[in-house]
Amino acid sequence: MNFVPPTASYAVIFTSQRRPGDAGYGETADRMVELARQQPGFIAVRSSRDASGLGITVSYWDSLQAIAAWRAVAEHRAARDQGRAQWYAGYELQVVRVERAYAWDAADGAQDPVLRA
Amino acid sequence: MNFVPPTASYAVIFTSQRRPGDAGYGETADRMVELARQQPGFIAVRSSRDASGLGITVSYWDSLQAIAAWRAVAEHRAARDQGRAQWYAGYELQVVRVERAYAWDAADGAQDPVLRA
Repeated sequence: MNFVPPTASYAVIFTSQRRPGDAGYGETADRMVELARQQPGFIAVRSSRDASGLGITVSYWDSLQAIAAWRAVAEHRAARDQGRAQWYAGYELQVVRVERAYAWDAADGAQDPVLRA
Repeated sequence: MNFVPPTASYAVIFTSQRRPGDAGYGETADRMVELARQQPGFIAVRSSRDASGLGITVSYWDSLQAIAAWRAVAEHRAARDQGRAQWYAGYELQVVRVERAYAWDAADGAQDPVLRA
């Protein structure tokens, strides 16, 4: 793994608990990732969901304006509405600013990586 | 779900890919959460790992100093060394500042929550 977002870029941390059943969720989730990647200012996305249905998705953006524009995309807004109606028991969302970042890969050797200024 | 970290608090986003096999990982991971909760400035932690071994853990702290102190705890340092030697194929870490946050729970009703200032 070797993704290091720029200092002073932004991220959206979206933590969610799914309700049981798919109800079209998987298809829409894939579509939202595809759509996010097409937005101005999109940098990267990472996502994990465990067997209990608890998931964390972090998307990285080059500005708060890019995040606000993505939030306003009609298809994204519709997906959020459907999420509250059908897919999620609850979620938590934070908009955050990247202060420091690093990455480590086994190929780099065993030493402790240093936080990038 | 209803956790909303304070504006201007900090978080550590730790995204990691596990190697196959446990090799003591589960026990140490549980211990690290227990130990983190005891640190000054700790606020909360959220964690998810999917079937492929990709996990995201987000811990929330009240200051950069609290994060630095946690990073320096000897038992935590030893766990990181073991992580690079045995458990992880790679990881990405960002220290971030919370700019805005909200939470939504199904019990709140279907309306779109507003980003807290």
